[in-house]
Amino acid sequence: MSVSHPHTPHLDRVTVPADLKSFSKEDLKALAHELRADVIHTVSKTGGHLGAGLGVIELTVALHHVFDTPKDKLIWDVGHQSYPHKILTGRREQMHTLRQPGGLYGFPKRTESPYDAFGTAHSSTSISAAVGMAVARDQKKEDHHVIAVIGDGAMSAGMAYEAMNNAGALDSRLIVILNDNDMSIAPSTGAMSAYLSRLLSSGSYQSFRDMGRHLVRKFPKPFENAFKRAEEYMRGFMTGGTLFEELGFFYVGPVDGHNLDHLLPVLYNLRDNDYAGPVLLHVVTEKGRGFTPAETSPEKAHGVGKYDPLTGKAEPGPKVETYSSCFGKTLTAMAESDPKLIAITAAMPSGTGLTTFQETYPERFFDVGIAEQHAVTFAAGLAAEGLTPFVAIYSTFLQRAYDQVVHDVALQSLSVRFALDRAGLVGADGATHAGAFDITYLGALPNFVIMAPADETELRHMMATAQAIDDRPSAFRFPRADVSATASFIPGTPLEIGKGRILSEGSTVCFLNVGTRLESCLTAANRLRDQGINVTVADARFIKPLDTALIDQLAQNHEVMITIEEGSIGGFGSHVAQYLATQGYFDHGFKFRSLFLPDRFVDHGTMDGQYHACFLDADALVQTALSLTKRPTLKAVGRA
Amino acid sequence: MSVSHPHTPHLDRVTVPADLKSFSKEDLKALAHELRADVIHTVSKTGGHLGAGLGVIELTVALHHVFDTPKDKLIWDVGHQSYPHKILTGRREQMHTLRQPGGLYGFPKRTESPYDAFGTAHSSTSISAAVGMAVARDQKKEDHHVIAVIGDGAMSAGMAYEAMNNAGALDSRLIVILNDNDMSIAPSTGAMSAYLSRLLSSGSYQSFRDMGRHLVRKFPKPFENAFKRAEEYMRGFMTGGTLFEELGFFYVGPVDGHNLDHLLPVLYNLRDNDYAGPVLLHVVTEKGRGFTPAETSPEKAHGVGKYDPLTGKAEPGPKVETYSSCFGKTLTAMAESDPKLIAITAAMPSGTGLTTFQETYPERFFDVGIAEQHAVTFAAGLAAEGLTPFVAIYSTFLQRAYDQVVHDVALQSLSVRFALDRAGLVGADGATHAGAFDITYLGALPNFVIMAPADETELRHMMATAQAIDDRPSAFRFPRADVSATASFIPGTPLEIGKGRILSEGSTVCFLNVGTRLESCLTAANRLRDQGINVTVADARFIKPLDTALIDQLAQNHEVMITIEEGSIGGFGSHVAQYLATQGYFDHGFKFRSLFLPDRFVDHGTMDGQYHACFLDADALVQTALSLTKRPTLKAVGRA
Repeated sequence: MSVSHPHTPHLDRVTVPADLKSFSKEDLKALAHELRADVIHTVSKTGGHLGAGLGVIELTVALHHVFDTPKDKLIWDVGHQSYPHKILTGRREQMHTLRQPGGLYGFPKRTESPYDAFGTAHSSTSISAAVGMAVARDQKKEDHHVIAVIGDGAMSAGMAYEAMNNAGALDSRLIVILNDNDMSIAPSTGAMSAYLSRLLSSGSYQSFRDMGRHLVRKFPKPFENAFKRAEEYMRGFMTGGTLFEELGFFYVGPVDGHNLDHLLPVLYNLRDNDYAGPVLLHVVTEKGRGFTPAETSPEKAHGVGKYDPLTGKAEPGPKVETYSSCFGKTLTAMAESDPKLIAITAAMPSGTGLTTFQETYPERFFDVGIAEQHAVTFAAGLAAEGLTPFVAIYSTFLQRAYDQVVHDVALQSLSVRFALDRAGLVGADGATHAGAFDITYLGALPNFVIMAPADETELRHMMATAQAIDDRPSAFRFPRADVSATASFIPGTPLEIGKGRILSEGSTVCFLNVGTRLESCLTAANRLRDQGINVTVADARFIKPLDTALIDQLAQNHEVMITIEEGSIGGFGSHVAQYLATQGYFDHGFKFRSLFLPDRFVDHGTMDGQYHACFLDADALVQTALSLTKRPTLKAVGRA
Repeated sequence: MSVSHPHTPHLDRVTVPADLKSFSKEDLKALAHELRADVIHTVSKTGGHLGAGLGVIELTVALHHVFDTPKDKLIWDVGHQSYPHKILTGRREQMHTLRQPGGLYGFPKRTESPYDAFGTAHSSTSISAAVGMAVARDQKKEDHHVIAVIGDGAMSAGMAYEAMNNAGALDSRLIVILNDNDMSIAPSTGAMSAYLSRLLSSGSYQSFRDMGRHLVRKFPKPFENAFKRAEEYMRGFMTGGTLFEELGFFYVGPVDGHNLDHLLPVLYNLRDNDYAGPVLLHVVTEKGRGFTPAETSPEKAHGVGKYDPLTGKAEPGPKVETYSSCFGKTLTAMAESDPKLIAITAAMPSGTGLTTFQETYPERFFDVGIAEQHAVTFAAGLAAEGLTPFVAIYSTFLQRAYDQVVHDVALQSLSVRFALDRAGLVGADGATHAGAFDITYLGALPNFVIMAPADETELRHMMATAQAIDDRPSAFRFPRADVSATASFIPGTPLEIGKGRILSEGSTVCFLNVGTRLESCLTAANRLRDQGINVTVADARFIKPLDTALIDQLAQNHEVMITIEEGSIGGFGSHVAQYLATQGYFDHGFKFRSLFLPDRFVDHGTMDGQYHACFLDADALVQTALSLTKRPTLKAVGRA
């Protein structure tokens, strides 16, 4: 360990959670102090999710002391907060590899540790998994505990409600710990959040509630937060968590999640008493607790880069613009001249680049909470009434609203515009966050227009195209990547729907790209030119509708076509293959290869490293082209 | 109209809902009486969803009398209950075409009528769409009403909760009518349902609640229902719908939904008073009301065939077994020797054929409510603990749990078995219920084994295969179709994973089928044999992993390959095309065509008619084969 590592005599005694069993309460308090310092130190070197872990230091220590993991099953919802858990469960020495290629994953992962009872990363899955594990325990006549730890933000997702609704009707013993910090990534939104932070009077409930709301609005921000916190505690003690009781849970709380004197007795009680059904323990914590720079930042140091562990000051870097910020700023500019334009996010205002929009047009900005399903059908309702909704959701999270996209949007041909961020591979966030499947799952849907920009200029044109399409749904997908720091945010010009472009004319071989692999195509074309092979580079722009005129032209004038995309099988390349087959191009010999993501989940790493390993870079294009030109007897091209 | 049509003088005066404006209360009561008779008469001729519509006769009359549709937006959740609405909104004369090819659709549909403000069919979308429409109204400075009518069963879906959570935090004026009949299709399940039918005492809530539960369990079924109904009313009057209040709604009710004297004043009040935010009106109704055979049937005549309108007696027909019943009975037989086998449904015990299983192994049967997301991750939790879960969900409804399939099951390679019913086109239920996309959206996922049986014997073998696969997820998809009435339900034998079969050996042309188009392949092969073309018919059985040895063998020994499947682009045919491309078969001329669903949503009709129109029958196979053999100069084969 480096010289600057904090002094951690208690933590140094912990190899596995069982080592905590013999710790006294004072030992546990000292351990918590050291663990907090260790997390701050570790993440300062690697970057990652800091605030969430700091909020559950005491809870993590208490859970591993009181319960008997891994026999008792402990599920961390989302898993942003699992770093202290990883440190206590035998992974302390690997923490410096966190989120690095080949290193520890940033979320709980079953294959990484038996203490990670269930892999998480997408929000609000923990209660469902816990109900399954509790029922399995009962079926197997076992008697261990099953514990899910879930944040208040995650409670806005329908999935959490479905799970509570089911758990409340079963008799399975189950502990759900509601980690209430009034934050998910952004401040929580929605009625559940309001419920959790509002004064509740059994007598004249309605008027008190309204009074509370109005009072809160009149206070300046710091007072408002203090007021809400006070409400929080009062409500819990006064009402006993009526809503959760109504859903069939036995409600306990609220408990100060940073006070082991309070936390430990409650957990002993839950461990030792034989409650028949589900229990909800309401714990109040503070995201970023114990690290001043985190406590004072608006998002409570949710995700951070490397920083100075003493000052919290981030390592200096150049100002960057990303596809996300380009999207958000351009959308704000577009909204100026289009009063019908509405922006919708599912609890990711910052991640989707919409902070500026939110500030500029608050009345046309809707953060619906972690609720992708509702976000999509809400947008369908707006579109049905003639407004121009843009729904900004990460590709991987739109999976949660697939049925709404199919049934409420595509089937009715409503003009919802989908801005799919984090399309393709996503580097350090790994397989759980990869946007691998959207081209395939959207490409199958009738009525859809689907685009993928090759750069930020194209993104702006595609946004303008989506804005103009008012008779059917459209989507544009873009990566988690930087763009030029001098990128423009001027609204683009609508493209002709279903028309691609040719960037360089060659012969024999053509590359047909869609998305941000275009740069690799141009690099590969240059390298092949040096070997005497002139390559045509085309950018389809549209996954759907296909530019069949362009494909005809390319197929008729080349011997070889290679498609490339940042997505899985069944997407762009497959659509092109089906078109070529139907038109009979294969009947007389036309060499066609598709480069797409391999049939495996891709581990976290650098994006360049991931695409290289996935045979989706300039090397792959060159190798594929050469195998089909210089060595015509070779039949197969290997894939990584 | 036929002689036996009921006498309907009031209804005969209604062409559009505006005609109801001048009706007196007594006129409206008479109209309701006639409308009920008209629905019973109409559905007796067409079959369809009877019970739901009969439950909302008075509500439909009252809504169209009080509100100003289509200016006021009225959204029927799911839409099973929309027949009386269709009759009052100008479609009475077409009701005899209901669910017939080219006729009225069985659900609300925007393109069918301006009175169908938002198309529905899948459950629990109405509140989200209504919130969107209410916000759009506010943005446009309009002042009409937006009304969603949603059943208590639909309230178990997370999507409804997400929408309420968002609506409760907005100030948009919105009316949600909770149509509480303690039934969706099967009796409702879950804590929300329990909440809605339980005695609640503000004083000693916990003990009263438990007492209520125990009492209910001790009563025989008819008393239990009566008791629950009594609880229902008492709770509402005593508590004022606390849970909905906590979610930010102004709660009104419960109101007897069959009593216009009660219903009309409440609706006038909601129409004329300027409530700031969302209102929940709790209406209690009886599914199948006014038609004795419906009232006494277990599912309250949810979906019916043709029947005698006086006696309710169904038209006699032969006893049929379906793929669903074959699945359910075989699974019951499998459970006998596999104590770890668990069956899960999302509120469709009967539709998925699991009634026998439920009766035989109640402790291993889980109906989680309309909650597909939870169903899948609940199953993942069971699989993580070594049990053998089978999740039975219609293909179209699994779309709602796509993210859970990706993130919780496939990514962790957990052995959840998916039984996908209603795969492919579904006849009268039409586009909203078609299982068109599952091959594509599951086929892209690493780790999955995906099968499609050609007949019920194959189904049983594939169920045994899925049971045996304990290291990764598997799925088998089967159609909404009858099987032989003498079908066996003996457990099958596991197939070798990824191995297809050859049914008849030919030369030149091969058909590569997956699913129940196999019969069409054999018919087409016979017809082609008469024309001197010997066709090989192969059944891939597995969509994933592909039987590459079989494909190699076929490609090396034939000039033409035609794949056929009951699914969209990006599925089986696309996977085969990509394999053939990668292996270089196209490089030297190999004729390949894929038959799959066209790029449009397919309207309701007969299944045979649908598949014919979609170029997915024996005719299509013959035509495609001939175009590639007898007329080699023809390049393209037309698709419907």
